[in-house]
Amino acid sequence: MPKITIAQNILAANDTIAQEVQQSLATHGIRTINVMSSPGAGKTTLLERTIARLRGEMAIGVIEGDIETSADAERIETAGAETVQINTRGACHLEAHMIRAALKELDIAHINLLFIENIGNLVCPSEWDLGEDLRAVVVSTTEGDDKPAKYPQMFAVSQVMIVNKLDLLPYVDYDVEKVKRQALAINPQLRIFQVSCRTGEGLDAWCEWLVTFANGKS
Amino acid sequence: MPKITIAQNILAANDTIAQEVQQSLATHGIRTINVMSSPGAGKTTLLERTIARLRGEMAIGVIEGDIETSADAERIETAGAETVQINTRGACHLEAHMIRAALKELDIAHINLLFIENIGNLVCPSEWDLGEDLRAVVVSTTEGDDKPAKYPQMFAVSQVMIVNKLDLLPYVDYDVEKVKRQALAINPQLRIFQVSCRTGEGLDAWCEWLVTFANGKS
Repeated sequence: MPKITIAQNILAANDTIAQEVQQSLATHGIRTINVMSSPGAGKTTLLERTIARLRGEMAIGVIEGDIETSADAERIETAGAETVQINTRGACHLEAHMIRAALKELDIAHINLLFIENIGNLVCPSEWDLGEDLRAVVVSTTEGDDKPAKYPQMFAVSQVMIVNKLDLLPYVDYDVEKVKRQALAINPQLRIFQVSCRTGEGLDAWCEWLVTFANGKS
Repeated sequence: MPKITIAQNILAANDTIAQEVQQSLATHGIRTINVMSSPGAGKTTLLERTIARLRGEMAIGVIEGDIETSADAERIETAGAETVQINTRGACHLEAHMIRAALKELDIAHINLLFIENIGNLVCPSEWDLGEDLRAVVVSTTEGDDKPAKYPQMFAVSQVMIVNKLDLLPYVDYDVEKVKRQALAINPQLRIFQVSCRTGEGLDAWCEWLVTFANGKS
């Protein structure tokens, strides 16, 4: 079974680099969150709103992963965070060696909190350790309330789930409690936030928790 | 570069099986559409509505791809199409050998039009030929109007793009014309439909075209 052996070797090599990344981040006192979701669930908008709220309190850096374009990195930089763009040119997930390279472009001596915005994909990024402290999956009220059951691995490896686009609940068939039940059945330790990046609902609680996380207290 | 060589061999082996699948489908006079999108863009609902409208006119079969669960296959069967569920158990896309196996479970002598609902993933399924006649990508108005530029490969390999969730346009920032421009810049031959599976808007035009497609006329 050469295919499986090689896949395992690639993942093992990734994990080695991820450990190196994690040590480097820990040495600099940087806390790191790998943000994952389907395309269009609102990762970039969540980061824009978060940075706008927290920029006075801490220095935030963002490694922005996209298959193509630098549009998201430009949005994040405008919001006030130091940003490095990774273009994977077709690849469906970020890998640890990409993070190691991106960190050389960031002024890591001055960053407290680092977000890694992964490729929009609810499957493949869940398999790749990037050296992060925490993984957050963003789901949205417009993408159907069956996603944890249908894409369980992503919810199993995450420590935080953010349910976004609460403002659209009146116009869609989406049962937030069902999603929470499904997600918690897969991962009972999951910390859940419910937000609308459009109206700002729920962002206070998310940002308050981020401050304690960045200070190493959660 | 052993990694790349083996990846190419796997894709070449897939293409060989895809040709076999295509010949088998052609022999039985079945026209086949591979439906792809992000998670939650509305593939299953589109198929439900389409089957409900066309079931009197033709026999429709569906191969339903999911990582886990058979919920979608149950929805499709209730709508009136013969359905086979593929659970990929973690894999992020369908491959031709899965379709070959699934066809053995379908009564292909009596099917005119076959849909293959791929895994919800705007990246990986674009690389895998399944022996289909046509690829359709579904995007929705809630997932941001930058998706063709950010995930170009999916739009390059598709012949049809369906913009779904038109009913939510009043509540989101989404420029349909921008999406069409981006998609057509990547693939000028793309045939575009705009629908709301919730209200039924645009489904007449889509189903009329499907009838001509199933009859081999487009």
